[in-house]
Amino acid sequence: MTKEVENLSWIAADWGTSHLRLWLMDDQNKVLQHIGSDRGMSTLQSDQYEATLLDLIGDALPAQGTLPVVCCGMAGSRQGWVEAPYTQVPCAPPTIDDATQVQTKDQRLNVFILPGIKQLPAADVMRGEETQIAGFLAGSPDFDGVICLPGTHCKWVHISAGEVVSFRTFMTGELFALICNSSVLRHSVGEDGWDAEAFEAAVSDAISRPSAVSGNLFSIRAESLLCDLDSTAARSRISGLLIGIELAAARPYWLGQDVVIVGESGIASAYGSALVQQGAMARNVTAEDMTLKGLSAAYDKLVEMTP
Amino acid sequence: MTKEVENLSWIAADWGTSHLRLWLMDDQNKVLQHIGSDRGMSTLQSDQYEATLLDLIGDALPAQGTLPVVCCGMAGSRQGWVEAPYTQVPCAPPTIDDATQVQTKDQRLNVFILPGIKQLPAADVMRGEETQIAGFLAGSPDFDGVICLPGTHCKWVHISAGEVVSFRTFMTGELFALICNSSVLRHSVGEDGWDAEAFEAAVSDAISRPSAVSGNLFSIRAESLLCDLDSTAARSRISGLLIGIELAAARPYWLGQDVVIVGESGIASAYGSALVQQGAMARNVTAEDMTLKGLSAAYDKLVEMTP
Repeated sequence: MTKEVENLSWIAADWGTSHLRLWLMDDQNKVLQHIGSDRGMSTLQSDQYEATLLDLIGDALPAQGTLPVVCCGMAGSRQGWVEAPYTQVPCAPPTIDDATQVQTKDQRLNVFILPGIKQLPAADVMRGEETQIAGFLAGSPDFDGVICLPGTHCKWVHISAGEVVSFRTFMTGELFALICNSSVLRHSVGEDGWDAEAFEAAVSDAISRPSAVSGNLFSIRAESLLCDLDSTAARSRISGLLIGIELAAARPYWLGQDVVIVGESGIASAYGSALVQQGAMARNVTAEDMTLKGLSAAYDKLVEMTP
Repeated sequence: MTKEVENLSWIAADWGTSHLRLWLMDDQNKVLQHIGSDRGMSTLQSDQYEATLLDLIGDALPAQGTLPVVCCGMAGSRQGWVEAPYTQVPCAPPTIDDATQVQTKDQRLNVFILPGIKQLPAADVMRGEETQIAGFLAGSPDFDGVICLPGTHCKWVHISAGEVVSFRTFMTGELFALICNSSVLRHSVGEDGWDAEAFEAAVSDAISRPSAVSGNLFSIRAESLLCDLDSTAARSRISGLLIGIELAAARPYWLGQDVVIVGESGIASAYGSALVQQGAMARNVTAEDMTLKGLSAAYDKLVEMTP
């Protein structure tokens, strides 16, 4: 809940699988207020989205007129609010023209859901990352290179002439979480901390012998039993092995390319240092900034289109 | 609970992480009765093992004298009943001489725990499989080749001159279970069924491009969303990718070697068909038979040693 907000022009929404992030925006695309919630797609039936939104921002709605809400993410999936069908590569990242408009009961809401992007063949999908890509391209329209978006499912995206040419998703983040939290290695890893040397050695090892990864993972357990391997080193090695095998497969994406990593914290800087170690250059941009810039670009287009 | 059993001479026990399997044996090493239980190591404190055993076989104990109980598996780990320190490669698989005798309160029990085997370097451990290896070698003392033991953690073991020369463990089975049950792919896989063609294609793919596995796993999710990929094919492809990357790394173990696979059901036959596909030959032996023969060989030695 939030009280009436002065200068509120529209709502930006990143509605993911596990989280919902809302930003109350003015007409210059400045953030007036941020609201985070754990009411992600996985917790909602399609008829619960509108009520969820009203719970969180209902008090901020204007007494008269309508408020645009521009969403990206899993709210547009088949199991989400309303399906926003994928656009297909090669394509520019979707904007308001490609969005699916949602019929709401509350006439003060005017909701748009941006679609994800699909690729066939090789089959691949994204939902949410396309808006970060749009945000990056809004600031760098002539970019020709590769955008890497680490996370649960890391994506490597080849951009040329303002379009997504091709992309490839890796399950690295999800495998890391499963191995650290649910496999036999959970007894060997620490909750946090970082051992850069152990990480780098594991990256090199996985790049030179990618097939050995599932054996090298068990070696971490054995070294923990037999040699009291430090739990921080164990965690960093698991990360290095998984990022290393990904970099080996993603080589055509990063080799000799201008690489931008979307993200600033732990996992994004791990990708950055692994790339530097391989002699590649990469710069980081802030994930939230890119999401907001992408949603703002869509909103700006909506304003342009409005007579 | 079981009633007094005629001709009972000893108890064979395979005490693993999640399960306990007991066999009541006569003096010719014939099984008189089998008892299965879910009271594995992970459910027990060290002072609960004796009571667990008495719960299950107390009524079968003789009124007079003692009954030998020969155990293998995780009961001998540091978190188990009593630690049975590893023997180290190169070594013959452990027998009763290497066992740790457990002091029990009930004087009718005479418990021996067989140790596991460790390797340093490369760090690796086994507990339970060494007894199956002993069982196989009891019937084939001159075997020179490789024993493959699929399971949660698949092991490849090089045997020569009656000794374990080296071995290598892969987390394949555990990764398969985590990916099918707990990752985003759980929405795409069936509970059972088998698609041999999808499996074989995935094995080939992983062997030729091992680094691509974490991307190819996500492709299964994307094909399920975009192309209605069949859930049986999805499950078989995950298995093929993980067994394929393992075979790529384990090549020095199976290439040109006499390979014996310990196991007979689904997972063991998957390994067998993947090896045949790679032009290797492998034969299967029954896992329970090998465990019982290994425990029986240890019991026979105990009888020999008894004055």
